[in-house]
Amino acid sequence: MKVNLNPAKGMRDFTPQEKEIRDYVENVIVSTYKQSGFNLIETPVVENIENLIGSKGGENLKLIFKILKRGEKLDFSKTDICEDDLADLGLRYDLTIPLSRFYCKNQSNLPSVFKALQVGNVFRAERAQKGRYRSFKQCDIDIIGDGSSAAELELITTTAKALTALNVTDFVVRFNDRRVLKAVILNCGFLDNEFDSVCIIVDKLDKIGMSGVESELKGKNYNEECISKLMDALENISKNGTRCLSSYSVPEDVISDVEKIMNDVKDYANGKYDIEFDFTLIRGMGYYTGSIFEIAYKNLGYSIAGGGRYDEMVGNFIGQQIPAIGFSIGFERLVNQLIEEKFKVPNLEKVVLLFEKSDSYINVMKKADELRSQGYTVSVYEKSKKLGKQLNQFDGYGFSKYAVFSGDDTEVKSLS
Amino acid sequence: MKVNLNPAKGMRDFTPQEKEIRDYVENVIVSTYKQSGFNLIETPVVENIENLIGSKGGENLKLIFKILKRGEKLDFSKTDICEDDLADLGLRYDLTIPLSRFYCKNQSNLPSVFKALQVGNVFRAERAQKGRYRSFKQCDIDIIGDGSSAAELELITTTAKALTALNVTDFVVRFNDRRVLKAVILNCGFLDNEFDSVCIIVDKLDKIGMSGVESELKGKNYNEECISKLMDALENISKNGTRCLSSYSVPEDVISDVEKIMNDVKDYANGKYDIEFDFTLIRGMGYYTGSIFEIAYKNLGYSIAGGGRYDEMVGNFIGQQIPAIGFSIGFERLVNQLIEEKFKVPNLEKVVLLFEKSDSYINVMKKADELRSQGYTVSVYEKSKKLGKQLNQFDGYGFSKYAVFSGDDTEVKSLS
Repeated sequence: MKVNLNPAKGMRDFTPQEKEIRDYVENVIVSTYKQSGFNLIETPVVENIENLIGSKGGENLKLIFKILKRGEKLDFSKTDICEDDLADLGLRYDLTIPLSRFYCKNQSNLPSVFKALQVGNVFRAERAQKGRYRSFKQCDIDIIGDGSSAAELELITTTAKALTALNVTDFVVRFNDRRVLKAVILNCGFLDNEFDSVCIIVDKLDKIGMSGVESELKGKNYNEECISKLMDALENISKNGTRCLSSYSVPEDVISDVEKIMNDVKDYANGKYDIEFDFTLIRGMGYYTGSIFEIAYKNLGYSIAGGGRYDEMVGNFIGQQIPAIGFSIGFERLVNQLIEEKFKVPNLEKVVLLFEKSDSYINVMKKADELRSQGYTVSVYEKSKKLGKQLNQFDGYGFSKYAVFSGDDTEVKSLS
Repeated sequence: MKVNLNPAKGMRDFTPQEKEIRDYVENVIVSTYKQSGFNLIETPVVENIENLIGSKGGENLKLIFKILKRGEKLDFSKTDICEDDLADLGLRYDLTIPLSRFYCKNQSNLPSVFKALQVGNVFRAERAQKGRYRSFKQCDIDIIGDGSSAAELELITTTAKALTALNVTDFVVRFNDRRVLKAVILNCGFLDNEFDSVCIIVDKLDKIGMSGVESELKGKNYNEECISKLMDALENISKNGTRCLSSYSVPEDVISDVEKIMNDVKDYANGKYDIEFDFTLIRGMGYYTGSIFEIAYKNLGYSIAGGGRYDEMVGNFIGQQIPAIGFSIGFERLVNQLIEEKFKVPNLEKVVLLFEKSDSYINVMKKADELRSQGYTVSVYEKSKKLGKQLNQFDGYGFSKYAVFSGDDTEVKSLS
């Protein structure tokens, strides 16, 4: 048998210690979301390939893991075989497509406004590099069927609540709206078909600065006057916020939507965190139609949560108009950051109960149960001859206490 | 876009109601196992294909979902393309192979006796039929590195504890040992290479009865005398249990192992459940080397948990001798059975808080938080004009209470 002990490239095993912190974080997020009335659903990691390929996933479509057809359906006799002849299934690359499919299928059994919670792994055949994985976890909440700004308020404040429950507090919500972006950029004289590529350059502002944005725009040979108007707009909006948006033909109802959401979040947050209007927040996905938002944590240079309104995606499946909005916590980034900050899972009292070969094992197990009924997590192991060395090892495995079995006199002691 | 709203064939979406009971059951099992000192690990659902294909998985090898190579590695230019040229990854068909790989890779950072807990989905491209899924959950505990019968005792009693915690109590542990099976069948005169196929026939005893077994054995043209000796042995062992095993050349240490385990389990169970020696318990996997066991629940005709000792599998990866033993709860069978029995997840107090469009949404959210701080799970929804109809619907979505927002006077009432 060929021996390869590594997990598949870009994927990870998790040891008990890693799993403990991951499960704790997931559990806090999920219970916060559930208590806030979001409904946990589950969809398979495998989807019919046409649902993945037919989606507006942009670059992600190139990263799909495709699953070979089986049995007679796998036909090599054709000349010019191509990938699409061979695969009928694929691993999902996000949770939004499965959610949309789920909602459309189960619509008649769901509340007309459906508040969904989904936690699961998604798969992308990315070039493997540090901190970028081919299988990673997402925690999404979505509200389907509510076009009002109450949905924005609920998603943002609930995501903030989940982070706060993890003692992640030093964060800021960045907020923008696709309709604002579009109005301003068109108002500067850019054409409709230039919108996406102008956005891609504006998105880099925090990395390359104003002059960098200007020279990249010039490098694309856009009209000089448009560029100069846009540079003025960037400065003006950054200084004056939403107040100046009407001078760029941003519709009044859009401005009042944005201002209402921001004021409501501020009111609700009551100083615990802030929300900022950020005209340079773009978010890549082509499917966003309205508000877009992220949560920036400390000075990490990347966001730990992101989302927005995608009013045209769910309905696409069944030819209806269905408003929808989602907010996704980047679970891997969040956990990696917490580990970096030496985050400790609270209240773990793990005891190792050591016994001699000569002890009655059944009595050892009964003693273990007695300790468990006192709230301890108890592992039973045979005592080794070198007790000190053994105790050091168990310290490393995450135990905090130990006991050497001696019937009724068994005593729980601290390991360190 | 081609519209297919169904999940992939043989796989399932889970609605909030289904997910609630599944999560509750999983949570009880996992927390019982963790409190008993088993260490939760996680491995990817995707494995390198050679680890799957090279395993002793028997029939399961034909059911592997294989993943297409990507980019330049996917080469169609070869003549006579076959499946194995095209796939480099596959979906795991059990949790034991990933566990073995994990243990061998991380051995130096794990206790010498490693008590593992794994919960996850496995994938088999079975012919789809009712109650048989292509993606299903397994909950496994395994003890690696302990060849003593303490491991059997711990796995059996801990699995029983998890079931008991779910109020599943009306069960019996069936126990056998591969070494007993082998000794008795050879003692009757069958040849070594006939062992597996004789086992397959004996396995059917509860379905086809003694006469059925006898005629199937005759149909295979085995020696008449061997068949008649085996039929006598079946009757004798069924009547007299382990006491008569020594008359079939079963080694004394094997008999005393079996008897010790059974006595210890009985002692520990203290009448809450029973353990029975069952010589007709076979369990299909070729990798079992010693004790094998199942848990039979009521008169279901199938087991809800099964396992055994596989002392040669883990070590195979790295050319060492490493004893190992596992017990797996068939999660889907267990959950389906509980649902059939109208199992209710305890202590759910789900409240729907209804508001009018004219209410201040921020005040509604603050009221929702106030109720959450009292322990309720609260969903916020706009009140519809037909309140009675709306309340009926929320009753169906699993809510037990409701409140209509009216500031400080908001009152939580029962839905039914």
